[in-house]
Amino acid sequence: MKQPVYLNHAATSNHKFAATVEELCHYLTENNNLNTNRGSQNIDELELIFDARQVLANFFQAPDPAHIIFTANATTSLNMILNGLLKTGDHVITTAVEHNAVARPLHRLEVEGQISVTRLCCDQKGQLDPDQLKSMIRPETKVLVMTHASNVLGTILPVSDCFKIARNHGVITVLDSAQTAGFLPIDMTEMSIDVLAFTGHKGLMGLSGIGGFALAKNREPMIDPWLTGGTGSASLSFEQPVFLPDKFEPGTLNMLGILSLKSAIQSIERIGLNNIAAHEQLLTKRFLEGLEKLPVTVLGTSDPFSRVPVVSITVARLDAGEFSQLLFDRYQIITRSGLHCAPLAHQTAGTLKSGAVRFSFGWNTSVEEIDYTLQAIKEILSA
Amino acid sequence: MKQPVYLNHAATSNHKFAATVEELCHYLTENNNLNTNRGSQNIDELELIFDARQVLANFFQAPDPAHIIFTANATTSLNMILNGLLKTGDHVITTAVEHNAVARPLHRLEVEGQISVTRLCCDQKGQLDPDQLKSMIRPETKVLVMTHASNVLGTILPVSDCFKIARNHGVITVLDSAQTAGFLPIDMTEMSIDVLAFTGHKGLMGLSGIGGFALAKNREPMIDPWLTGGTGSASLSFEQPVFLPDKFEPGTLNMLGILSLKSAIQSIERIGLNNIAAHEQLLTKRFLEGLEKLPVTVLGTSDPFSRVPVVSITVARLDAGEFSQLLFDRYQIITRSGLHCAPLAHQTAGTLKSGAVRFSFGWNTSVEEIDYTLQAIKEILSA
Repeated sequence: MKQPVYLNHAATSNHKFAATVEELCHYLTENNNLNTNRGSQNIDELELIFDARQVLANFFQAPDPAHIIFTANATTSLNMILNGLLKTGDHVITTAVEHNAVARPLHRLEVEGQISVTRLCCDQKGQLDPDQLKSMIRPETKVLVMTHASNVLGTILPVSDCFKIARNHGVITVLDSAQTAGFLPIDMTEMSIDVLAFTGHKGLMGLSGIGGFALAKNREPMIDPWLTGGTGSASLSFEQPVFLPDKFEPGTLNMLGILSLKSAIQSIERIGLNNIAAHEQLLTKRFLEGLEKLPVTVLGTSDPFSRVPVVSITVARLDAGEFSQLLFDRYQIITRSGLHCAPLAHQTAGTLKSGAVRFSFGWNTSVEEIDYTLQAIKEILSA
Repeated sequence: MKQPVYLNHAATSNHKFAATVEELCHYLTENNNLNTNRGSQNIDELELIFDARQVLANFFQAPDPAHIIFTANATTSLNMILNGLLKTGDHVITTAVEHNAVARPLHRLEVEGQISVTRLCCDQKGQLDPDQLKSMIRPETKVLVMTHASNVLGTILPVSDCFKIARNHGVITVLDSAQTAGFLPIDMTEMSIDVLAFTGHKGLMGLSGIGGFALAKNREPMIDPWLTGGTGSASLSFEQPVFLPDKFEPGTLNMLGILSLKSAIQSIERIGLNNIAAHEQLLTKRFLEGLEKLPVTVLGTSDPFSRVPVVSITVARLDAGEFSQLLFDRYQIITRSGLHCAPLAHQTAGTLKSGAVRFSFGWNTSVEEIDYTLQAIKEILSA
């Protein structure tokens, strides 16, 4: 078994498809002229960007390639979406398990006195009853923003049900797919998603530094440009262009990132998203079953099919940071301890003070690595 | 001579150092485990990011590595800096040749009624008299933001003189180094720069998708976090951390971009910035001398030593777009026509209606390519 054992896929996947690595190296060594954004004759580059938008539009069932916006990561996307949508007096509904990529931008607008925020309650396992939404929606409720799955608890949220209720009340729906894109199928139409934030470097297995968002039809007039600057179009005006994708793409794009994302999603589609999900669910199930026999507390739901391949645990005798460090020092297992940028989720789980150790799996994680990790946990706890 | 001839370095350099390409491909093929942001045991990755900050801090004479902030590009940096600095009632001074990366964020705050903006006058060649600044500074003047050189006219602005006056009046100085980093030496202390925005993909010869800003000592309390989200630190709080660099680095960083920037600047330092500048100045001088014999109008100063390696021209008989297209179709020369995301500069030059064709040179541009391009222009204009 190759070491270290990398179990931090919820932060960044360490897997790059061989085809992607080859395409990226080819681009770097042979096609420097491609890397020529905003020139007039860079047809290859424009084609690459267009192709990537098309691959993503197809992957998420977005209306067309122009409705795919590239940004640096999901955090940038969520900042652009929330700050672009929300105006003084607006009310926002979110959940009690959000990542700081949603919680902090909302908090900033809240303390500035611009918006008010209500959080959907989750039980200790991160489960959420969509019906509570109905009583929370007010005339001034503009946006429902929620994560598709908690990056701490692993629990998948009932997005479709929540978004249907929201749409029925004229509330704009925003999904943070950071933990689910590349694991769960995401269909913007079927799931009533108005704006879908994604990142390239986790389940989609592209490079870090590339992400974006997808827009449903006719949603762009609702979102003001927040990040502004040169777009190589409508340059005469000091206003950001109103058309897509330029409205939301000021500055030079991450070409290598875009290439990595296009290439990786094409590989995911060749393998089949359902096959990737089945493999990662099997790992999660095996890990959860193994943990049952050990003196640990597992956060989130015990049903391996209601969660993403993310399992966080606490143990009685050991601090989370210490435990994670032991796993690395003695067994070369890479996990992540602490609050995982999601104090809300830890508050919901009752682990705000202790934190937790998170194990997260990817397409290249093996059953052998799961068993090795279970054995390591067992040995540490019985020492 | 290799074709196409790439003369669009002011948009994106198409040159990558062999050492950089090698490091990037090595990272992609061998070091996938490096790509593991926000894990607890990713020492190699943390080391790489720290090293890159150190290389940049040294390159720009920033106080220390933590004062280097990574973003996606100069546009993102300038949005973060300007929106983070400016509050309701503030007055800003800028110039009449700014790129839309400065002009559009300022315009957005201006139309929202938050700030007022005054522009330093430039003559038709883009030259600016620093003394006019004194009469423009008001009690509520908070920021002077200016480009180091026009991306259209090529003219280098007297940044040090302007910034000294601004500092003497307690005005915060912000430099957009998009057209000069990697060509002119930039010393934050000597040039009285408070905040320095840079991008990686032009003169610094890194990848697109990486940029950032450097802060002088004790400037960070003046800048509110504008882009917010998870930082892997102080996660308990909904407020962005107050310490550097985390305060301004929410979300996952572009690891490959950071590696490319570190590696490319190390190559630039091995070659010597003065040697790169001398080569590019020689090309510019030769091109300007050649143009003197042709029926074209050159924008900006005629002194090759007062400009960056960017030369824009207009011709009487041909539309700029048509001219650029002919250069490509007949001679495989890649230029950029239009307004170059800088209507202010074109207004200053008197070319707002016509636009111009821009030729911009880089470290890998050859004298042969300059001569070939001059011959091509001659042939097109005498046809």
